[in-house]
Amino acid sequence: MFRVYGTSVSGNCHKVRMALEALALPYEWTEIDSMHGQTRTPEFLAKNPNGKVPLLEIEPGVFLPESNAILCYLADDTPLLPRDRLQRARVLQWLFFEQYSHEPYIAVARYLRRFHPDPASQRALAESKSDGGYRALAVMEHQLANEPFLAARRYSIADIALYGYTHVAGEGGFDLARFPAITAWLARVEAQPRYVRMPSE
Amino acid sequence: MFRVYGTSVSGNCHKVRMALEALALPYEWTEIDSMHGQTRTPEFLAKNPNGKVPLLEIEPGVFLPESNAILCYLADDTPLLPRDRLQRARVLQWLFFEQYSHEPYIAVARYLRRFHPDPASQRALAESKSDGGYRALAVMEHQLANEPFLAARRYSIADIALYGYTHVAGEGGFDLARFPAITAWLARVEAQPRYVRMPSE
Repeated sequence: MFRVYGTSVSGNCHKVRMALEALALPYEWTEIDSMHGQTRTPEFLAKNPNGKVPLLEIEPGVFLPESNAILCYLADDTPLLPRDRLQRARVLQWLFFEQYSHEPYIAVARYLRRFHPDPASQRALAESKSDGGYRALAVMEHQLANEPFLAARRYSIADIALYGYTHVAGEGGFDLARFPAITAWLARVEAQPRYVRMPSE
Repeated sequence: MFRVYGTSVSGNCHKVRMALEALALPYEWTEIDSMHGQTRTPEFLAKNPNGKVPLLEIEPGVFLPESNAILCYLADDTPLLPRDRLQRARVLQWLFFEQYSHEPYIAVARYLRRFHPDPASQRALAESKSDGGYRALAVMEHQLANEPFLAARRYSIADIALYGYTHVAGEGGFDLARFPAITAWLARVEAQPRYVRMPSE
């Protein structure tokens, strides 16, 4: 059985839970308090030298890090990852977009505002993420204004990856009401079979 | 024939050139001056709404952005991307590591020191990338101390992706002499058939 080492309120970790649930795969979840150093212990670094969650244990002692690599592994040969070469590349396009152009702004702003022990001290830093986050949302809105899902005109791990932090972008100070196509897409994701909500803490 | 829209001195763009050359695929290269706004023109944004290079034109009007998604597309069904599910996930693990934990430090420090019009004004910002960059290099060193290549014990697009900015990390102020396994790996990459050097400007 798969084991996930993860922090439930992390969007990166929640993606993995969403994929496992969507695919009806059995798993156990080991909660890791990444905000209080549990990814930096010698024991955890032996599992993932990069010191990050989520981490998938595929079989005892075989560990796969990087949320979006985990999504690709889980979705391999399933409807969540197209086989067609170009359509699969389009899914990957959005996965890389998410990690480079979206997460560093939207997830970081959310962390600083909601989870940092002294959010007031981080206000300027959080606000410095605003332009980049809105740019990423505008790119998504542009795509979703014409397409029901981000890639391949069907629900895929690209949607799961972008849903992770987009649906809690409000906690990072972003106003999703400005993005009607994103708002409609969030509802389409939440209407998928076996959709699972992010735990509140 | 493929067309690449790219900036030759960009590591992200050079990855695409390396993969095309390694696979002996014919292509044309359209040089884009991304440092002087050529990725932000209406004409370019119509091709890639995220306004970034590299951009692969697969056939007239079909554009694929994101350097590492392009690598996956080009390497599909070739020795540069393993078919085995876990080994392919390992390659993807390093591709996501590169975009999230490596490039934002090493590539950005290099840009600020070498290409910014007023590098002196950017010194503090460049130095703020140092710890993250050295952390990424330490993760690579840990892997390469025991393995000849980053994933699957063979040369793959994971090596091409990480080579892109690692081989010019010195231009970002990083001292690669501290990393003997990385140094030996750079030489192994450069010894690959059809290896192509990054243009100097």
